[in-house]
Amino acid sequence: MPFQVDFEPIGRRIRVEPGTTLLDAAQRAGVLLTSICGGEGSCGRCIVRVMSGQVSPPTAIERGELGPDQTAAGWRLACQTTIASDPCIIHVPPDSLATAQRTQTEGQAVAVELQPAVQPFDVQVAPPTLDDLRSDAARVRAAIPRPDLAFDAHVLRRLSTELRDAQFHFSAFVRRSEVVGLRPAGTAPLGLVVDVGTTKLAAYLVDLNTGDTLAALGAMNPQIAYGEDVMTRINHAISRPDGAEQLRAAMVGALNGLRRDLCAQASREVADIADAVVVGNTAMHHLFLGLPVRQLGQAPFVAAENAALDLKARDVGLELAPGAYVHLLPTVAGFVGADHVAMLLATGVAERDGVVLAMDIGTNTEVSLRARGKHLACSTASGPAFEGAHIRFGMRAAPGAIERVAIRDQKVHYQTVGNGPPTGLCGSGILDLVAEMRRANIIDVRGAFQGEGRNLRLRRSGRGREFVVVRGDENNGTEITFDRSDIAEIQLAKGAMRAGVNILLKRAGVRQADIDELIIAGAFGTYLDVQSGIDIGMFPRVERSKVKQVGNAAGTGARMALLSAAQRERAERIARQVEYVELTTEPDFSSEFTHALGLE
Amino acid sequence: MPFQVDFEPIGRRIRVEPGTTLLDAAQRAGVLLTSICGGEGSCGRCIVRVMSGQVSPPTAIERGELGPDQTAAGWRLACQTTIASDPCIIHVPPDSLATAQRTQTEGQAVAVELQPAVQPFDVQVAPPTLDDLRSDAARVRAAIPRPDLAFDAHVLRRLSTELRDAQFHFSAFVRRSEVVGLRPAGTAPLGLVVDVGTTKLAAYLVDLNTGDTLAALGAMNPQIAYGEDVMTRINHAISRPDGAEQLRAAMVGALNGLRRDLCAQASREVADIADAVVVGNTAMHHLFLGLPVRQLGQAPFVAAENAALDLKARDVGLELAPGAYVHLLPTVAGFVGADHVAMLLATGVAERDGVVLAMDIGTNTEVSLRARGKHLACSTASGPAFEGAHIRFGMRAAPGAIERVAIRDQKVHYQTVGNGPPTGLCGSGILDLVAEMRRANIIDVRGAFQGEGRNLRLRRSGRGREFVVVRGDENNGTEITFDRSDIAEIQLAKGAMRAGVNILLKRAGVRQADIDELIIAGAFGTYLDVQSGIDIGMFPRVERSKVKQVGNAAGTGARMALLSAAQRERAERIARQVEYVELTTEPDFSSEFTHALGLE
Repeated sequence: MPFQVDFEPIGRRIRVEPGTTLLDAAQRAGVLLTSICGGEGSCGRCIVRVMSGQVSPPTAIERGELGPDQTAAGWRLACQTTIASDPCIIHVPPDSLATAQRTQTEGQAVAVELQPAVQPFDVQVAPPTLDDLRSDAARVRAAIPRPDLAFDAHVLRRLSTELRDAQFHFSAFVRRSEVVGLRPAGTAPLGLVVDVGTTKLAAYLVDLNTGDTLAALGAMNPQIAYGEDVMTRINHAISRPDGAEQLRAAMVGALNGLRRDLCAQASREVADIADAVVVGNTAMHHLFLGLPVRQLGQAPFVAAENAALDLKARDVGLELAPGAYVHLLPTVAGFVGADHVAMLLATGVAERDGVVLAMDIGTNTEVSLRARGKHLACSTASGPAFEGAHIRFGMRAAPGAIERVAIRDQKVHYQTVGNGPPTGLCGSGILDLVAEMRRANIIDVRGAFQGEGRNLRLRRSGRGREFVVVRGDENNGTEITFDRSDIAEIQLAKGAMRAGVNILLKRAGVRQADIDELIIAGAFGTYLDVQSGIDIGMFPRVERSKVKQVGNAAGTGARMALLSAAQRERAERIARQVEYVELTTEPDFSSEFTHALGLE
Repeated sequence: MPFQVDFEPIGRRIRVEPGTTLLDAAQRAGVLLTSICGGEGSCGRCIVRVMSGQVSPPTAIERGELGPDQTAAGWRLACQTTIASDPCIIHVPPDSLATAQRTQTEGQAVAVELQPAVQPFDVQVAPPTLDDLRSDAARVRAAIPRPDLAFDAHVLRRLSTELRDAQFHFSAFVRRSEVVGLRPAGTAPLGLVVDVGTTKLAAYLVDLNTGDTLAALGAMNPQIAYGEDVMTRINHAISRPDGAEQLRAAMVGALNGLRRDLCAQASREVADIADAVVVGNTAMHHLFLGLPVRQLGQAPFVAAENAALDLKARDVGLELAPGAYVHLLPTVAGFVGADHVAMLLATGVAERDGVVLAMDIGTNTEVSLRARGKHLACSTASGPAFEGAHIRFGMRAAPGAIERVAIRDQKVHYQTVGNGPPTGLCGSGILDLVAEMRRANIIDVRGAFQGEGRNLRLRRSGRGREFVVVRGDENNGTEITFDRSDIAEIQLAKGAMRAGVNILLKRAGVRQADIDELIIAGAFGTYLDVQSGIDIGMFPRVERSKVKQVGNAAGTGARMALLSAAQRERAERIARQVEYVELTTEPDFSSEFTHALGLE
């Protein structure tokens, strides 16, 4: 009789014969576990956790890869573990999934009590007659039980016409005491959520009645054409008369494109979008709103505004329902923005006891440390190296990108997105590669290559020494290499992050070992192999079970704010309680940074 | 010893020898009394009222012209009355003043308790430092004692830059809890008031701190290019795809021009205008706001909106301070608009005891009747004849326009605007002419010419019979005539007004003789000779002392609403209590109208 196996949280179920490995069961259930070595137990990547049910005891290979604490906590290698009872519940952490599937794990529904700012009213009114000469607006006001109901100017302009086109029966979208849209009867209002990253935009279309995410899309931030990092863009904005407007128009254009594509995906109309929430770091927030950024680019780096804002979408160039508003979550300070507040909203870090460290990894990496009743936060200029920029063979996590690397016996094992022939390295592959080169002592703690003669894949080129990741003769002539300057880019990125972490720990008076929980957020934070990050010193050394990869938590927090007025208020409380630490003026920063460049 | 004479309400004082006529005294004081006959006592136009002081007893001429009741009440002809004590106070009614001076009588200050929607705050904040990293907005919020202070999106866009340009000291214009403008320290906020008439626009620039009117300007409504009356414009708006937008853009363009010229006149900046009030009839109100008018143009003639509105000025195309609002007073019904509500605000008709009839004369003439605790109102399509349209020699009250006419012994006496040679007839001249032709029995009650042989000025032309007002040989060859079709235009105009009045009186169950007060509003209402209006049956027959000419009361009411939140609330109460009477569906209307065409 076959046994039932449930894979959580991805939500797949299968029945298999006793003795089947978890790796085989997962594959047959359509769960794409990372497995570089093909089930030999040598790559150590198909890590899962047995939550309930009986399985085979840990093998020697597993004890070696995972250590006694982790195996005791139920962590196993799927290729080494066979099923021995019915049913089994198996937890699959994000970093054990192949890229293609990891994006699917982002929750489609957000768990908050629904209390959206906009509510639909089904309105049916009597047409005017000679005995009932009330204005069209007065007639609609009488049908909607909200005191002092007003109409947005642009809604009012269409009211009389739409009322008659709809034969006096329609759906009115009401925000507090204002009608912001009129739609055919029965239409549910939608909400738009955008997480504006320095490099990437993530957008979601949400049903305000159910809280369901109907569509999600990502895109590059087109401002990249004007500079990769925040400071370059601020300089562009202040050094050219039309610079800020170029940046604003590029971003708003992309957002209007995303909201159009989201609607097409969900077969809905743009006019159905009755509310929006936009989050981003403070610079993106300012550039999006058309706020001046000069004062943000020079000490003491102050924002024009850090409070939450409710603005008419049309006033910032977003085309939604005619009277729709856009809500901007509050920002913490010059470089800790509304996206970080949204992440705190989604993860609950700000209200947690114990010592919790949260890192939201991106072109800027924001770090929050909650410890002893205090909440410190800083922003680190980690740069876009993990997005593939400045790395010779770097690329986005597109098909052909190497996303996992293992080096065993001078052989490089890898896995690509889509399993096709490799064309470059994406962030998680780069991180794995550096960690594996360090573990194999191909590079030393300073990042320098060592033992040239002893490693067949190490050679000297015009650019200095380089490591051959994929040989041309193995890959139809396409060679992929990694050199000293690529390693340096990763050292700079991880050094910035880690210096920020260390300064916050020092300020709070807690040690690495005191950390009860490490939360890793951001799209790249989902894909990366946590152990690789720990091994090169990007993250503090904490037990695997204390690490939580939460994906694009900023997007989740923004959706929570879209769906709930209470969450908007919570965001304001959180933003006010966070104590900002400005790293550039921190006396210890440069020594911490120099120290953090080392690969542990 | 010379005696002191005060002329009220124009506010001129002079000392003259005892025995001087009031007409001479007025001329020397710079008070331009109408005097067509040159002081002979034959034209009966230099009517004034002695409020205090001793003057000569009434002459036989005065008793004949004015009757015993009026002379007993102190009404006199200025040319027949000499001064006999010190001091004398003389009231000069508007219709006894020459046009040029009548506009000056419009009050420069409006008597309301100042409670404007926008208040200025002198703000001085400390620049940010490394120890004070609050955002610019937070710093300004802390300096302005208003809870939950927010910034308009467009103000926020300039905040950081303007803060630094002003070295952190400036004036913030605050409306409720929103900053709508930032200006140099010490700047008082201004308000704009516009009365949008079908034919004319009147605009005022008001100091919100003092209530003073700093500048006033009039202009033609450029929508005239698309049709003279309301119905033609509504047809234009609905019959052409871009028709409504053409009308809207034309009007908004004119308003932006007026507010620029007003600022130039007062040497102020457009960005100083922090609030605005716009009034107009319902069609003008809708076309200005870009609201649909189709349903306004066909039975049952309902408005899209009749409540008071507060809209961002930029949302309706008005360029003022970046965050300024425009307030629209409520309208009563399809054709009784916010201008009528403003008139009621200024005159207090709605709160009056007794029987009060108020007529606001324009291209549409709105009539209000307050009687026995009820308030009825209607709108009559009086047309633009009194603005000179459709009258062969009609013209605006520009220099050369005949504004007063008296016919004595087959001679036509007249007075022109600016006293130059006559070039045409303006509204008050047309009204006088028809009344005088009727008094002299040149026309009969039906408006037909009679007694051709007996009147040297009556002749037959290609267009039928006509009356020669000015002979070519008296006026360098320029002849001015008035024919049957001109008379018919005036009959239609006055017939429409009077039919409305009669229907309201009938509805309220009161007679003409019950009227305690007749209020005549509108620019033309200031210029016309009340007795002429009564004599042709345009107005009901009431005693002169019961008549009040209040000028552009709509503009005054709108200024009151600009300066006082309490007045805005009062306007809403008034609009709600008025009972609208739709004349086109009134069964008696056509018989009343036919009857009212007669010239009494």
